[in-house]
Amino acid sequence: MPETNRQIVLAELPHGSRSPAHFRLVAGERPRAGEGEVVVRTRYVSLDAANRAWMQGATYRSALNAGQVMAGGALAEVVESKTPELAVGDLVFADTGWQDYAALPGKRLTKLPRMEPLTHLLSVYGVAGLTAYFGLLECGRPEAGETVVVSAAAGSVGSIVGQIAKIKGCRAVGVAGGAEKGRWLTDELGFDAAVDYKAADFKKQLREACPDGIDVYFDNVGGDVFEACLFGMKTFGRIACCGAVSQYDGEAPRHGPRGVPGLIVTKRLSLRGFIVSDFDDKRTQALADLQSWVASGQLKVQEDVIDGLENLPQALVGLLHGENRGKRMVRV
Amino acid sequence: MPETNRQIVLAELPHGSRSPAHFRLVAGERPRAGEGEVVVRTRYVSLDAANRAWMQGATYRSALNAGQVMAGGALAEVVESKTPELAVGDLVFADTGWQDYAALPGKRLTKLPRMEPLTHLLSVYGVAGLTAYFGLLECGRPEAGETVVVSAAAGSVGSIVGQIAKIKGCRAVGVAGGAEKGRWLTDELGFDAAVDYKAADFKKQLREACPDGIDVYFDNVGGDVFEACLFGMKTFGRIACCGAVSQYDGEAPRHGPRGVPGLIVTKRLSLRGFIVSDFDDKRTQALADLQSWVASGQLKVQEDVIDGLENLPQALVGLLHGENRGKRMVRV
Repeated sequence: MPETNRQIVLAELPHGSRSPAHFRLVAGERPRAGEGEVVVRTRYVSLDAANRAWMQGATYRSALNAGQVMAGGALAEVVESKTPELAVGDLVFADTGWQDYAALPGKRLTKLPRMEPLTHLLSVYGVAGLTAYFGLLECGRPEAGETVVVSAAAGSVGSIVGQIAKIKGCRAVGVAGGAEKGRWLTDELGFDAAVDYKAADFKKQLREACPDGIDVYFDNVGGDVFEACLFGMKTFGRIACCGAVSQYDGEAPRHGPRGVPGLIVTKRLSLRGFIVSDFDDKRTQALADLQSWVASGQLKVQEDVIDGLENLPQALVGLLHGENRGKRMVRV
Repeated sequence: MPETNRQIVLAELPHGSRSPAHFRLVAGERPRAGEGEVVVRTRYVSLDAANRAWMQGATYRSALNAGQVMAGGALAEVVESKTPELAVGDLVFADTGWQDYAALPGKRLTKLPRMEPLTHLLSVYGVAGLTAYFGLLECGRPEAGETVVVSAAAGSVGSIVGQIAKIKGCRAVGVAGGAEKGRWLTDELGFDAAVDYKAADFKKQLREACPDGIDVYFDNVGGDVFEACLFGMKTFGRIACCGAVSQYDGEAPRHGPRGVPGLIVTKRLSLRGFIVSDFDDKRTQALADLQSWVASGQLKVQEDVIDGLENLPQALVGLLHGENRGKRMVRV
């Protein structure tokens, strides 16, 4: 086992757009397990838009500071254990940060099952799949025959949201950037329609894709797409607020969407913000449903795996520019 | 019974602020009841911020047009009946519009009990009281010990919201314009604190009045007050969206509040828009609760009664400027 621990630290906090120059690769020492701890070897680091939000300030976790190892969740393997709960070789999902090794308290880790491919533990059976499942079904509460719109539809969460909507008998409309992504959504994943938010006639496309209005909007982006969907909602529609990736790169908070709160009142809308851990008590059922849909071929899993710890900064920047399809991760 | 029917018609649609000059008093003929209809004599016209919203465009009802009798709900007495459901002398709440007499289909009217004072049928047992009750308890879902903030707190709905919050064991904070209204809320109605949204240090006042943050915000106004409360919400807080009176007088829809949807996600907030009729199936229980609180003296009813049909335009303009305390109505 090598004694060095490659780490990617946050060299400076980005104020506007972030770039790989905001990060630095350093060599630290491999940590040792203290009492009650394990040392894990990072296998696949999950790339998420939320990574960028953490750099902006306190969210549901403390803000990141310059000089710290960049935060991030990963699929990791126990290589040293001083806790009875976990043994060498066990797989866990952990907030390792962007580094080869991390020493972590054993009590806060949950052992994951081995499966093929392992990457599914980070995509459909990980945060992305569970976020899609809970956000759509618990916050969106779609009924068969209703129209569900999801933004960032080609991303890790959105691509699953639309497919679950179809499984539940809904009309699924994806908002994504560019005609090529749109074709992928309709031709490969079975979405009923796709709308290009970069097109000049985006609002017209959205209206045509939802001729009866929108019953459920799963929002990953905020900003102009949020506003356009808000204006398209039907009475008693529901909006699941999952993220605001369009806002993560701005300087200061901008103005919010027009129609808030006026349209919320007149259309009697419900909006609900959530993060995946809010539904920890329903994980077992969720995973069982996701597994059965994958097994039956109703749910296609799309993964975007990049090799090399050193490529993490560029992989995150690309993710925030929307270059991924499905779940992006880096093999370490 | 006089044969003339005084009517106030909308002379032109206001584009910015409305004034009495947008209305005209005309003399029409007293209508006769057709088959299945009743003719009612208007007794008390309800003044509501929603009256202004209806002039802006379609909401949950069709937009008003120039030349039409101004729309509005009223407590009215049946003076002629060609329907078995209602007899002469019966009291009803009806969308009479701003006029002495209206002919209406009997089927859509509900007979009200006679009580003293009759005005309570328009305030605490009318739309205002039920709106406060359902918005707070069904959308806000406050629990004892939580902090409830309500805007337009000295108005017909807000003054009841704060008192119900107290009855439910919550800390009640009212947002209103001016120190005098604030004193009335705390000294007369029992609010724990009042915050003056017109003061330069409004945001500081709000933070001091809610040292632990806001669990439930009952929004009547939208705009800057909505934004300030959004930033003050606690995790898992709830916002009941009841109206947006600050927006009713603008030209075009403005930008919405900052923090939407970002703060909704990170704080995992729930927002719900509603109008009172959404809860028609729960009216009986609501009225029983309101009656028991009024009888026990826990809920004080504040009414602001103005005399004379001809004073309706000025009464509405004043309401939109916030000059009323409690429920404003015009005796005809």
